[in-house]
Amino acid sequence: MLIAKEARSPPQSPRCISIISVPSIVYETLSVDTKNLRFESRLEVPLSWEDPDLSWNTSVYHHDMVVLPVSKIWTPELHVTNGVQTTIKHSNKDLLVHSNGTIEHMVIMNTVVGCEVNLYNYPFASDFCAIALNVWAISGCGMFLDFGNVSTTSANRGDWLTEEVELNAKGGRDDRNYLWVLLKMRSENPFLSLVLPSILIILADVGSFALPLGESKRIPFKVKLVLSFIMFLNILKDLLPGGGQCSPIIRKHFCFCLVILVLSTLQSMVLTRLAKCGTLWPCSLSKSKDSLLKDTDNEEESKSDIKASEEEKNTALQKVVKFLNKMAAQDQKNAIHHRFANKVDLICFCIYLTVLIVYSFIILFFSFGSQCEINHLEFWH
Amino acid sequence: MLIAKEARSPPQSPRCISIISVPSIVYETLSVDTKNLRFESRLEVPLSWEDPDLSWNTSVYHHDMVVLPVSKIWTPELHVTNGVQTTIKHSNKDLLVHSNGTIEHMVIMNTVVGCEVNLYNYPFASDFCAIALNVWAISGCGMFLDFGNVSTTSANRGDWLTEEVELNAKGGRDDRNYLWVLLKMRSENPFLSLVLPSILIILADVGSFALPLGESKRIPFKVKLVLSFIMFLNILKDLLPGGGQCSPIIRKHFCFCLVILVLSTLQSMVLTRLAKCGTLWPCSLSKSKDSLLKDTDNEEESKSDIKASEEEKNTALQKVVKFLNKMAAQDQKNAIHHRFANKVDLICFCIYLTVLIVYSFIILFFSFGSQCEINHLEFWH
Amino acid sequence: MLIAKEARSPPQSPRCISIISVPSIVYETLSVDTKNLRFESRLEVPLSWEDPDLSWNTSVYHHDMVVLPVSKIWTPELHVTNGVQTTIKHSNKDLLVHSNGTIEHMVIMNTVVGCEVNLYNYPFASDFCAIALNVWAISGCGMFLDFGNVSTTSANRGDWLTEEVELNAKGGRDDRNYLWVLLKMRSENPFLSLVLPSILIILADVGSFALPLGESKRIPFKVKLVLSFIMFLNILKDLLPGGGQCSPIIRKHFCFCLVILVLSTLQSMVLTRLAKCGTLWPCSLSKSKDSLLKDTDNEEESKSDIKASEEEKNTALQKVVKFLNKMAAQDQKNAIHHRFANKVDLICFCIYLTVLIVYSFIILFFSFGSQCEINHLEFWH
Amino acid sequence: MLIAKEARSPPQSPRCISIISVPSIVYETLSVDTKNLRFESRLEVPLSWEDPDLSWNTSVYHHDMVVLPVSKIWTPELHVTNGVQTTIKHSNKDLLVHSNGTIEHMVIMNTVVGCEVNLYNYPFASDFCAIALNVWAISGCGMFLDFGNVSTTSANRGDWLTEEVELNAKGGRDDRNYLWVLLKMRSENPFLSLVLPSILIILADVGSFALPLGESKRIPFKVKLVLSFIMFLNILKDLLPGGGQCSPIIRKHFCFCLVILVLSTLQSMVLTRLAKCGTLWPCSLSKSKDSLLKDTDNEEESKSDIKASEEEKNTALQKVVKFLNKMAAQDQKNAIHHRFANKVDLICFCIYLTVLIVYSFIILFFSFGSQCEINHLEFWH
Amino acid sequence: MLIAKEARSPPQSPRCISIISVPSIVYETLSVDTKNLRFESRLEVPLSWEDPDLSWNTSVYHHDMVVLPVSKIWTPELHVTNGVQTTIKHSNKDLLVHSNGTIEHMVIMNTVVGCEVNLYNYPFASDFCAIALNVWAISGCGMFLDFGNVSTTSANRGDWLTEEVELNAKGGRDDRNYLWVLLKMRSENPFLSLVLPSILIILADVGSFALPLGESKRIPFKVKLVLSFIMFLNILKDLLPGGGQCSPIIRKHFCFCLVILVLSTLQSMVLTRLAKCGTLWPCSLSKSKDSLLKDTDNEEESKSDIKASEEEKNTALQKVVKFLNKMAAQDQKNAIHHRFANKVDLICFCIYLTVLIVYSFIILFFSFGSQCEINHLEFWH
Repeated sequence: MLIAKEARSPPQSPRCISIISVPSIVYETLSVDTKNLRFESRLEVPLSWEDPDLSWNTSVYHHDMVVLPVSKIWTPELHVTNGVQTTIKHSNKDLLVHSNGTIEHMVIMNTVVGCEVNLYNYPFASDFCAIALNVWAISGCGMFLDFGNVSTTSANRGDWLTEEVELNAKGGRDDRNYLWVLLKMRSENPFLSLVLPSILIILADVGSFALPLGESKRIPFKVKLVLSFIMFLNILKDLLPGGGQCSPIIRKHFCFCLVILVLSTLQSMVLTRLAKCGTLWPCSLSKSKDSLLKDTDNEEESKSDIKASEEEKNTALQKVVKFLNKMAAQDQKNAIHHRFANKVDLICFCIYLTVLIVYSFIILFFSFGSQCEINHLEFWH
Repeated sequence: MLIAKEARSPPQSPRCISIISVPSIVYETLSVDTKNLRFESRLEVPLSWEDPDLSWNTSVYHHDMVVLPVSKIWTPELHVTNGVQTTIKHSNKDLLVHSNGTIEHMVIMNTVVGCEVNLYNYPFASDFCAIALNVWAISGCGMFLDFGNVSTTSANRGDWLTEEVELNAKGGRDDRNYLWVLLKMRSENPFLSLVLPSILIILADVGSFALPLGESKRIPFKVKLVLSFIMFLNILKDLLPGGGQCSPIIRKHFCFCLVILVLSTLQSMVLTRLAKCGTLWPCSLSKSKDSLLKDTDNEEESKSDIKASEEEKNTALQKVVKFLNKMAAQDQKNAIHHRFANKVDLICFCIYLTVLIVYSFIILFFSFGSQCEINHLEFWH
Repeated sequence: MLIAKEARSPPQSPRCISIISVPSIVYETLSVDTKNLRFESRLEVPLSWEDPDLSWNTSVYHHDMVVLPVSKIWTPELHVTNGVQTTIKHSNKDLLVHSNGTIEHMVIMNTVVGCEVNLYNYPFASDFCAIALNVWAISGCGMFLDFGNVSTTSANRGDWLTEEVELNAKGGRDDRNYLWVLLKMRSENPFLSLVLPSILIILADVGSFALPLGESKRIPFKVKLVLSFIMFLNILKDLLPGGGQCSPIIRKHFCFCLVILVLSTLQSMVLTRLAKCGTLWPCSLSKSKDSLLKDTDNEEESKSDIKASEEEKNTALQKVVKFLNKMAAQDQKNAIHHRFANKVDLICFCIYLTVLIVYSFIILFFSFGSQCEINHLEFWH
Repeated sequence: MLIAKEARSPPQSPRCISIISVPSIVYETLSVDTKNLRFESRLEVPLSWEDPDLSWNTSVYHHDMVVLPVSKIWTPELHVTNGVQTTIKHSNKDLLVHSNGTIEHMVIMNTVVGCEVNLYNYPFASDFCAIALNVWAISGCGMFLDFGNVSTTSANRGDWLTEEVELNAKGGRDDRNYLWVLLKMRSENPFLSLVLPSILIILADVGSFALPLGESKRIPFKVKLVLSFIMFLNILKDLLPGGGQCSPIIRKHFCFCLVILVLSTLQSMVLTRLAKCGTLWPCSLSKSKDSLLKDTDNEEESKSDIKASEEEKNTALQKVVKFLNKMAAQDQKNAIHHRFANKVDLICFCIYLTVLIVYSFIILFFSFGSQCEINHLEFWH
Repeated sequence: MLIAKEARSPPQSPRCISIISVPSIVYETLSVDTKNLRFESRLEVPLSWEDPDLSWNTSVYHHDMVVLPVSKIWTPELHVTNGVQTTIKHSNKDLLVHSNGTIEHMVIMNTVVGCEVNLYNYPFASDFCAIALNVWAISGCGMFLDFGNVSTTSANRGDWLTEEVELNAKGGRDDRNYLWVLLKMRSENPFLSLVLPSILIILADVGSFALPLGESKRIPFKVKLVLSFIMFLNILKDLLPGGGQCSPIIRKHFCFCLVILVLSTLQSMVLTRLAKCGTLWPCSLSKSKDSLLKDTDNEEESKSDIKASEEEKNTALQKVVKFLNKMAAQDQKNAIHHRFANKVDLICFCIYLTVLIVYSFIILFFSFGSQCEINHLEFWH
């Protein structure tokens, strides 16, 4: 008799409408791909529906319920409207049929949904994603879902916490049900590897103003900082989340850091020249030094053959003094240049600090003050 | 009766020609692979066609429409002529049959199409791609598509914006329909990680001419720049888009940057030697210095034992003066070398700047002025 | 007759309950993904059950056992309750049926299980993972498993050792069986590439206090350390295991290392300035030096035209002495600054060492003393 | 009648031999994997064969051609003899049957073929690959292919150009057909990222001989070069093509570059010591300097208490002279060492240049002169 | 008649035992994964067996052989006992049946086998791997394989050479056949990128002892070496083969290199301080210098106002001499420290060299002398 029943198992929808009951959904977030803005989840969906053709009279056939293979019976097919890729597997290849035609079954859905997660303030991102879970219904013919409660499992595994899952229906329409998943990023890891190093590099750049200008310390230091930052950006490039409407503000932050590092390096290079020559123009430093030496030289040569021994001694001593004086004069000239360059450096430092502080306030304002809104249900026009 | 109908469900094409109506296509770009020049998209294509064998008399069978399993009925199969890989899934395993034999169905196509995107001016790329969407038709027998309108969803997600999608037919032939997708790159990200660092490195190289020549500052700086650039190129290698006909001009840009950095480093190294020795030939600087010292030495040794105390005093003082004079003379010689090297350096700097400015104009002209044309429909000969 | 029997092969469960015997399981860990907290394993599960419908009378049909194709017979389907992805393959496409209806079969399961491995003290991690292995049973109807022993193969291949595998049942319920797998990490590799370099970098930073403060040695050294550490962190980022409840303490360790390296670099930069100027404020070092020179200069100019030759000689000598004295005085001032900076440096070094020692004890205490507990069976509520 | 025909559709081969006609093949290279020496291609193969069982009398059944589902009819199966992985898809799920039994169909093959591309002179590689395209034929029973022409599409997309495709048959045997694909590498990209940097680094190493020996410039420069080259090699390691019989000569080139860089660094380090001490043995430079100072010291101490004031003055002056003389003497000694080291350096430079020039000729000779031959049809013994 | 025969095609095993003949196997190694210790191979296995039910009387049916579709006939299924993943494809979808019931068929197996390759002396590794190739046999019922010869193709493609393949049976049991594959690594590539750089870095570290101790050359050099080595290790981390029982000795080698580099850097840092201060304790160098200067200062101040002009002159000169003497004395003190530090440095260098030489012998002994044995057939208990 069972086998006969099975022969009758093709899909049936008597009044072209059937109601599928979904007593409880177990939801689990598998992964969130911030690069391509997709997120993968796994749903355990028990289904239960009535198929009058599969009922029987218990007085004739003395079993309350029968186990039938799932391949011989029509089963409803859920689909995810905004899913990029959805695989549905029967949790078991048998299902249970009660004598009144009620069928109990469970399917396991792995679905990848395109969800434009709001990554505006990236390492502290938290957003909703919708999984539009529906059944086939066209031109008034089809099925409707009757949802129960939703629970989550393994909610705090991986990089994204699943804070809350609830069922909604857009515009109250019963063919537009969706799971509303509240995701929150674990900001620890990207903060440690994206934000912290950028702050520390900027801090080190500020600190490098403490290094004396003229010597061979500050410039290699700054250059190293700039190049490290470029390398840093390139290595991190695949970590940086993708664009979308709400492009993460952290990208602009990195751009700003890069430019300010290069500017502060160029400023140091120019001031080094300023400290040496007094002008930005190719300095004639060697010429002046040279003339000084020539001067001494000539003076000496012209005088050294006429003077007497006593005079000679004095002249000799005076020459030494003259030499020292000229050295002192040159030192003094250098010192004037140095003093000037140091003053300019101090001013630059103040400007730099001001820009950084103003920037910090701006970035904090933009990341926490303003909000970028995304319509997560735009796939339903 | 349903079951009997199902038994009759194999494909039917009465006059060997059937028309498939596609009322509306929902298009979504999934990803663009600039490396292998492929792009992936997802199409939701509702189909509707008439199968006279599946019609019935509503007076006999009192239903306007019937739901039948898709596996028991013939369905048309779309294919993408220029597709590298295409997967077509039924959006549901049931479909709706109206009493007049009209069948309503929907398929979801994920198709990877080889599209030689024009990457000539790479980070600002924008090009068309064609998705040739057709059905099977051979020797006058087959199907024809009757398209409705096309709409896009999630058009500004990911790195490539889908600006416009429209339906065309090549040469007006109804078996050569294609979707004409206008893609535009989000140039922010590659500009930040490809173009900006290269400009900043060149800028830093220009700025490094402000560093004094002879001291140990400019050369390590330049070397660090060159090597960083090599590393930078290597890390970015997998970001650089692939070749094709319109090879991106940015690759030539990187090549130019690399060569100019190495040349400016070699120039600095040669000028450092020039500033030291006056010639490019292994300089005999140590020899001259040595002879000077020997001279003083010998003089001193020969004279120090014959002179009287007063003379001795004078001689001693004169020796000090002589020593200082010789030092000054050597300084002067160095200064002449230095002055010469500085002049050459200034000339090199001017040449360098000129080359850079000319290059900028050339690259701007080539990237925006000229255009590289690609025939995107070459797969139809 | 065989063929006739085959026709009768659909699944049968007479009293809605059947017992599946699993004489022995061969377990093999394939891989452990600490990033996504999943682990993959392979199970060889021989099954044996009785199907009364497949028994025959050996007197009628003279074979003790018959080989039947697996596709024509109902076979029980195991499933892994906490499995993210499970594939079950028949080890062979035939199975053996004994005349009393006992069926012998074997399935091979590749299962990916979400297991929140306790990575609290990461490179020395060792934890349990549960594989909930059950069959379908719903509303009192279904199957129960009767397990034999479990053995492992290839237990010490790969990064994770499978130390022990045993069968348990949660709460003694026979529908909640699980394999309790004790995994232990091979800590060699991550220790060598994660912990050892971080210790060596900190050690090198401690050693760098031996470098003299004022010269151009310590700061480039420290900067190089900091930047290398940032690079190191970024490269290693994909090695660092994911978060979960018990976030590995090594991440906090890296964070601490990074901050202490930057702090010690900033300290060195500030002390370098202190050693130069005596204050943290932009030092007027060039001014003082300059006034000294001016002083000498003026003095000399005013006096050089009135004094007699003898006096002149004395004055000249005295000027030399004065020059030397002033140089000495400046040296002395610098020396005072240096001495002060050195003292501060010594104090900083002591503080630094103390912090490191205290930190070592804290980290050792936290990683071995305290324990982070994870409920591995939370998927059963 | 159609349905009845379908029932008769299983494969038929009347005389155990059938001829499959392949009027035209459209070939497209998808990718070439130089790492694992495989290449992937896509073939559009229209097939046409006669199946007498599927012919009908047009006078009875008034259709010239009928569309039948591909799943109900036997179709020939092509296979690629040297294919690692081949997937064959029907281009459509229907096919056309003419009344005389001729069947028209098309299949799309994606095949990965192991092809040991000759990478001997790597960035300028160009080689043939064979795709052995055959049908099943065993013991005189089977099918034979009758090929038409071959055309290519998208021939210049990606890194490898498909220059020519032609059909051949090994030894004229009609069961050993193969496509002979001539591939040519786009050498731009690997040249820019593999060969150019290695040449530039060697060039910079040659240029670094212009840097003066004794100062702190040349060694850090060379070391940076060596280490950069090591990093460079490691990053590029996954770009370097795999081995095979004709191992690319570029690998030996890199090996040579690495060794010559290290040798030139070691030479510089040894010459730096030579310039300082005159010997390679731990130099006693501090001892000699020390004795000189002691000498001056002792002399001074012994004499300073007996001499009169005038003498004292002279002595004091003489001491100054003596001090300067000793300094000069030491300078002279250093200068001798320097001169010697410079001479050795010049000799080394000449040797280095000679080795490089000879090496260039050798590498050019080996990469263009000699040729490494590979038998691409060795899979047919 | 063919169709009727097909209807009878289900698997048959008359006496519960059947012999499958495997005339020749063509073996090809596809890849060896040293990370996860798996290796993939491809086998072309022709099978031939007798199925009495498929024989016919040639007098009745006048064909010697018939081509039947593989899907309608039972075919034996090979399986790989130690396979992690095995896919078996029919080489063709038709097979040949002779009139005496002999069936000729060919299957293509792609199998991934867990093989704990002995990587003890890694870049020179060579080991056996077993592929246990068997058919289903249980409780005396099943099939047995009758093997012919084995040949290999493409044996020297890729990183691993297939040196030899032979068939064995464990313990002579005919249900425990395995292919015994002798693999040999191409050691060129890993030697060039793993061993050579580590040797060159150690060599450069040895060479760096030639650099003078006190100046700013040796320490940045050594630090650069250490950090490069850390980076080098991290980049190479995914190249290093996985653990298993015979952990490759190269990992210990890298560990040793890292530690010895850090130790030699620390030694240099400590000796730099020793060369400066004479003690390891925070040196009071500035204090002594300072007191010297103060001394001169005070002396001068107290005396400069009482002495007469002549005396003054003498005093002035004497002061200059005193100044020079004090400088000399300090130089001498420094020189003593330097000499001491140089001696310690020489001793350290000798120890370092000895350790390296001893280490080389030990590593050579361990990698070539001793052998680590792995039982490759442990999956059969």
